[in-house]
Amino acid sequence: MNVNIGSASENVAGGREEGHRLDKLRRSLTRGKQPAFLVSGLPNIRYLTGFTGSNGYLLVTPDKVTLFTDGRYEIQARQQTQGIEILVSTSNVLDLLVDKVRRTRFKRLGFERNRMSFQTYEFLRRKLRGRRLVALDGLLERQRMVKSPLEVERIRRAVELNSRAFDVACGKVRSGWTERRFAAEIEYHMRLLGASKPAFDTIVAGGARSALPHASPQLVALERNAPIVVDQGAILDDYVSDMTRLVCLGRLSNQQHLLFQAVREAQQAAIEAVKAGVKARGVDRKARQVLKKFKLDKAFSHSTGHGIGLEIHEQPRIGRQEDVRLASGMVITIEPGAYVEGVGGVRIEDVVVVTSTGCEVLTRTPRDVRFL
Amino acid sequence: MNVNIGSASENVAGGREEGHRLDKLRRSLTRGKQPAFLVSGLPNIRYLTGFTGSNGYLLVTPDKVTLFTDGRYEIQARQQTQGIEILVSTSNVLDLLVDKVRRTRFKRLGFERNRMSFQTYEFLRRKLRGRRLVALDGLLERQRMVKSPLEVERIRRAVELNSRAFDVACGKVRSGWTERRFAAEIEYHMRLLGASKPAFDTIVAGGARSALPHASPQLVALERNAPIVVDQGAILDDYVSDMTRLVCLGRLSNQQHLLFQAVREAQQAAIEAVKAGVKARGVDRKARQVLKKFKLDKAFSHSTGHGIGLEIHEQPRIGRQEDVRLASGMVITIEPGAYVEGVGGVRIEDVVVVTSTGCEVLTRTPRDVRFL
Repeated sequence: MNVNIGSASENVAGGREEGHRLDKLRRSLTRGKQPAFLVSGLPNIRYLTGFTGSNGYLLVTPDKVTLFTDGRYEIQARQQTQGIEILVSTSNVLDLLVDKVRRTRFKRLGFERNRMSFQTYEFLRRKLRGRRLVALDGLLERQRMVKSPLEVERIRRAVELNSRAFDVACGKVRSGWTERRFAAEIEYHMRLLGASKPAFDTIVAGGARSALPHASPQLVALERNAPIVVDQGAILDDYVSDMTRLVCLGRLSNQQHLLFQAVREAQQAAIEAVKAGVKARGVDRKARQVLKKFKLDKAFSHSTGHGIGLEIHEQPRIGRQEDVRLASGMVITIEPGAYVEGVGGVRIEDVVVVTSTGCEVLTRTPRDVRFL
Repeated sequence: MNVNIGSASENVAGGREEGHRLDKLRRSLTRGKQPAFLVSGLPNIRYLTGFTGSNGYLLVTPDKVTLFTDGRYEIQARQQTQGIEILVSTSNVLDLLVDKVRRTRFKRLGFERNRMSFQTYEFLRRKLRGRRLVALDGLLERQRMVKSPLEVERIRRAVELNSRAFDVACGKVRSGWTERRFAAEIEYHMRLLGASKPAFDTIVAGGARSALPHASPQLVALERNAPIVVDQGAILDDYVSDMTRLVCLGRLSNQQHLLFQAVREAQQAAIEAVKAGVKARGVDRKARQVLKKFKLDKAFSHSTGHGIGLEIHEQPRIGRQEDVRLASGMVITIEPGAYVEGVGGVRIEDVVVVTSTGCEVLTRTPRDVRFL
């Protein structure tokens, strides 16, 4: 295992970076005349402070940042964050938050429309009478779309680790292994290579089940002479990776091979369309055009890709109706697929960084079917 | 790997069981004069239908159940569910839901207060003008508190598998292993034993870090002569397990041993207090009383336990202010702890089933410190 991963020096760099992120958020808030902002999305709190606990709220005002959490995370919060106030609740974190907000001068409190439950909203509205709650849209999701060089490096290393885990696990597959065993082996090797955990439940879906885009691995033997879709991601230093490849024990039929070629071509066309300034839906359209040529456009039941970073699904979405323009430093997946019930499915997925002239493909694993 | 786990016959039993669950929910809805109900919590949808996808809403009316999902889950939804209508969206699932609700006769639509985002609520309120949205509290969470015999059996098997994975991993620990390697080994063996995945991120926290109740395993060597807290759970056939034990390489100091004895005694007292009819806070108090005797009551920074089932944290919570009365068939954890910054922490956790005369402890792993 590589014990150099997650070194102290990087944590310091992370700390500085979090300061810049808060500064940038405050500038957005000032422009929006909404100086007091409540962050309830845990990945957004992590992005702004480094805190990784499972319960917390963050209050950002022009001159102060306060993290509210519970006793389980008291020590951890102090260790993980720098320069922010930490308030620890012994019962309900929201009561503590309400007390604090009441003692501020702010008459309006911004909150994250897409990251707050109805229950919490209702509670705050009732307890904060006289103050106005203002739903804000995706402020931090927009800010997080473009990655810093440090973030791109972390993703690059997560992508490389993910590819290595795939290679090692493929080398170990034995006849009679179940899908679940293969998935277990992939995730085990991610961990041995230094990942903190899988970024999502690894998909291993063979034969007819490969036609289920989000199948979970079953206790059935890996199917022979059929496509097996493997979709896996690893988290390293908080940043995720995401890759899909087709593996096969034995050989593919002509029909299955054609399906693979169509998706391969669609993916290539989409990757070639990626460039700063291009609309996300333009990239999605390229993949669909190729699949249409193969009469497979109806077999492509999801969007072409998504941003990755601290979370496995971030902005921008690379979908049919997405008008957002790609920008340098965005990190996205390109993963068209085609799924034919009864026959099987294919998906090929790489991670790319958007640049001014096109993109850099971070995933180095060959895209060809891996015959085991 | 045990390929008998998750057999077809059980899935049939599951299907029947889901029918009973829907019937019971409808009776609650009728009593509440709220016949149309929108389920947005994914574990609740799974509980009612068997559907395990990551995107879905369920509309329950007196004579129909409709599942709304997207293209990724079309085939899967048909395979996993019985006797319900499935509508698949090509763009936004909520648009499809709105269309459907508008075509019903119901003027009021119940929804899950604690399982809906503010954003979704706002969208539905805007699109469903003329209908009233009624926030309902924990209807399904209450229904799910008491487990059926089939559910208890599934939890029992998940608990047994979890204990076996702990034993196997403990037998493999080598000097120089990191916390993360140990966690990887535990999770790997869960999978080899048939688990679909860990129920949560396995905690392995040694030395001073054992004082962090929710520490994540680090890339540091397992500490010698210090308590190492291992908190792990496995999911088998959709149901979770949860266990915490103390392991040690070398020996414990007298102070650390005393900490362990105090928590051990607190846990025993709490387990002995469990019985149908007793209030949850009564069980919590027993643990606190023992820790107070050891002057450790302030070192116990969380509650004594929680229900488990399809989710790792379910109702009832076994906390200081919980008035709910325990009932036969509830399955809860009993897990007091004590955490002293700089010295270390201890937590011991078992799963118990509440009975009319007391409880049955499902966890068979000895509670003593496991010296490796």
